Amino acid sequence: MMTKALNLLWLWGLTASGAGLPPAVRSAAERIRQAALSGSGAAGIVQSLCDHVGPRLAGSAGSRAAVAWALEQMRGLGLENVRAEKMREPRWERGVETAEIVAPAMQPLAVTALGGSPATSPEGLEADVVSTENVESLHALLARDPSAVRDRIVFYSEKMTRQSDGSGYGKTVNIRWAGPTEAARAGAAAVLIRTVGTSSNRLPHTGVMKTGPEIPLVPAAALSAPDADLLERLVREGKTIRVRLILTCRTLPDVAGSNVIGELSGSERPREIVLLGAHLDSWDLGTGALDDAAGVGVVLETARILSRLPKRPKRTLRVVLFANEENGGRGAAAYRDAHRPEMSEHVAALEMDLGADRVRAFSWLAGGTSEPALSEVAALLSPLEITAKKPEASGGADIGGLREFGVPLLDLSQDASRYFDFHHSADDTFDKIDPKQLDQAVAAAATVAYCIADMPERPAPIPEEKRKAQE
Amino acid sequence: MMTKALNLLWLWGLTASGAGLPPAVRSAAERIRQAALSGSGAAGIVQSLCDHVGPRLAGSAGSRAAVAWALEQMRGLGLENVRAEKMREPRWERGVETAEIVAPAMQPLAVTALGGSPATSPEGLEADVVSTENVESLHALLARDPSAVRDRIVFYSEKMTRQSDGSGYGKTVNIRWAGPTEAARAGAAAVLIRTVGTSSNRLPHTGVMKTGPEIPLVPAAALSAPDADLLERLVREGKTIRVRLILTCRTLPDVAGSNVIGELSGSERPREIVLLGAHLDSWDLGTGALDDAAGVGVVLETARILSRLPKRPKRTLRVVLFANEENGGRGAAAYRDAHRPEMSEHVAALEMDLGADRVRAFSWLAGGTSEPALSEVAALLSPLEITAKKPEASGGADIGGLREFGVPLLDLSQDASRYFDFHHSADDTFDKIDPKQLDQAVAAAATVAYCIADMPERPAPIPEEKRKAQE
Repeated sequence: MMTKALNLLWLWGLTASGAGLPPAVRSAAERIRQAALSGSGAAGIVQSLCDHVGPRLAGSAGSRAAVAWALEQMRGLGLENVRAEKMREPRWERGVETAEIVAPAMQPLAVTALGGSPATSPEGLEADVVSTENVESLHALLARDPSAVRDRIVFYSEKMTRQSDGSGYGKTVNIRWAGPTEAARAGAAAVLIRTVGTSSNRLPHTGVMKTGPEIPLVPAAALSAPDADLLERLVREGKTIRVRLILTCRTLPDVAGSNVIGELSGSERPREIVLLGAHLDSWDLGTGALDDAAGVGVVLETARILSRLPKRPKRTLRVVLFANEENGGRGAAAYRDAHRPEMSEHVAALEMDLGADRVRAFSWLAGGTSEPALSEVAALLSPLEITAKKPEASGGADIGGLREFGVPLLDLSQDASRYFDFHHSADDTFDKIDPKQLDQAVAAAATVAYCIADMPERPAPIPEEKRKAQE
Repeated sequence: MMTKALNLLWLWGLTASGAGLPPAVRSAAERIRQAALSGSGAAGIVQSLCDHVGPRLAGSAGSRAAVAWALEQMRGLGLENVRAEKMREPRWERGVETAEIVAPAMQPLAVTALGGSPATSPEGLEADVVSTENVESLHALLARDPSAVRDRIVFYSEKMTRQSDGSGYGKTVNIRWAGPTEAARAGAAAVLIRTVGTSSNRLPHTGVMKTGPEIPLVPAAALSAPDADLLERLVREGKTIRVRLILTCRTLPDVAGSNVIGELSGSERPREIVLLGAHLDSWDLGTGALDDAAGVGVVLETARILSRLPKRPKRTLRVVLFANEENGGRGAAAYRDAHRPEMSEHVAALEMDLGADRVRAFSWLAGGTSEPALSEVAALLSPLEITAKKPEASGGADIGGLREFGVPLLDLSQDASRYFDFHHSADDTFDKIDPKQLDQAVAAAATVAYCIADMPERPAPIPEEKRKAQE
């Protein structure tokens, strides 16, 4: 309580000195926050994208349908300068994916190919399994015996832990990203990973693996947690485990895709841009409700709310629905390339891509002179039970690349406790959306977007020494 | 408390009068109960069946492997008269199962064929969807318009409710059992049902539909709950929904199968049989951990415990692992046929087939003179937090048919709160087993089996007027 009282005094002092948010901006932000919290249209937007478009992996018919959907939605919401900015996107198709234990006893396995995986031969690939925890333990194994995995199927068994900030994902995802190529380099025949997720059902989570012209590749798939548990039990019994894997996935030539962009032009400084991003593509297994129709719903609903204000904010709000976040990041790259000349006019960027649950924390990365104003924005979020958080913001996959241009980054970190139960799996469907939590996220995003767009001073750019992303 | 005290007095009176369990039986039962509760081998048996045999649908290679496994297990446990009693079992194979919404917008659906379903043509079947809740509402629809479902795909949307006694299943399962044939009779092209289960993931639950020489059939499949929700939302939008369904399932000629039987011969009245049953087969999607490896584990572990007693119980304990419970009940029928001459020697039958969680209630159906002794058995279960329950026992799918012969039936009703999250789905796997709860079920089954096998008077047969199963 003491801290809160001190904060309030400090805020009052700042405002009085003119360094923060003017009272009119603060009170407008409070009204926006309250209105969104009492019921937004975000869940309806999410439902429309899930039900009327469905899965929308880059390169698929769903991806094209999503672009058409997004253009129509933006126009319907009254956004301006609505356009599809063309880019090229990859086209990887899943095909058939089956696996079974053939020894010690026949048993089907629930698998899903990792994005970018090559196919096995049509009749499948059969090999003995060698089990290791992660890439580090693979290297330790190879140091003892360089032929340990040759012609084998490498099974990475590392378990992701459930954390409200989703940090378990970052700690484990390397088995999916680098695991296949590290095993390929050592002569493995194929790779199976324990699903990188927290679900305990038999729906494995897909996701992209490292690929590229110089990257050795082998067929790679994720096992659901129960199937990984089964393999681990058989490994503990000391039996030779033989698995057959059939994947018919394939990479086809790149095709045309689009980032979809719409704006609310600023009333006083229209060249200054507040970027609000989410990604339009999704994995193919589910309907991408949490990843990232939810983000799409939050940013579009935020734009709708701000479009209905009696007076337009000073700066332009630009909603960018990025293409191909999931397996290539080509949308983000295309945006950076196309908008390089106006990078210095990007006053801040916020990306929503951590599911549909409530926002827990607000953080930022900007020049030090903006601390007071951004702290005031943070204070406006505290009725939503959102705390101002250190460390500084890092942006997400789509806006993180703006850091090198000094564009201030804002993070609204959502509760990710249950996100990784569904993320990248067939279970990422609309029924998992909790409209109340989504409304809280809209309230947060709309509050932040409005304040940044209408505050007197634009946030200061990221200092040069902080423009390199930390590993 | 009052009731309990009165019960104790009443029990004491009965024992003193010689109508109940002798103190030696009671104290032996208490030791058995306590030993099982402190840790049994049941989970290990379940694991072995799941991991070393896996799915074991009637007619499959897994079914044959399960018979070999069961014979080996019984011999290893020291049972006597271990044998495979031959019968014929059906052979239905699942094949490919895919479905997609083709209008208003393309979208894959998670489906699984119902057991016994015929195939669609290889390229699939495409038709408009007509939605109805259940068989009753279908009939109401047909009364208004007899052509309402002709050439359509009938979608039954009824939801199963979660109940600790599993009663939601019985109230809903008719959409699976009778739904397809009722729709076929009215000229439907195919049937989709909302999964009969309580899971909210995209793993639909299979199960048997009504088939037979005179039964009209159409291809029929279950949709996962999220997919059923999606169809319902589209129905509410009033759009014409068109679905394509591909099923390649097929029914092949019957093959040889076996009930697997082992015994502990009684020390005084070896011709009198206490039957302990579970079923060895499982659906093909998961590994049948809960349905019914758990039951197999409980009855085999019960036999093991009783085989280690210093003195054999008076009567014979017969463990029967039934074949083909899931899609035909041929194991139960074969047992009745083969053992008809000794039906009157069956002093009681108990079946374990409601998952792996703790037993909540004990009930029985026997002649009235056995009430005092069976109430005493019930009292021995109360430290396990098991209540004596009315209405009377009904047996399960495998032993219910013994009722017509007057064989006393005993039910140990398990907590089914989460059973239908997994039952008949790909998610019925060993990781769902809670060994502590399974031990409690073993403690209950061993207590009951021992008491019945060693009590002075065998339970009185079911009176004639109660031998017909109630609908």
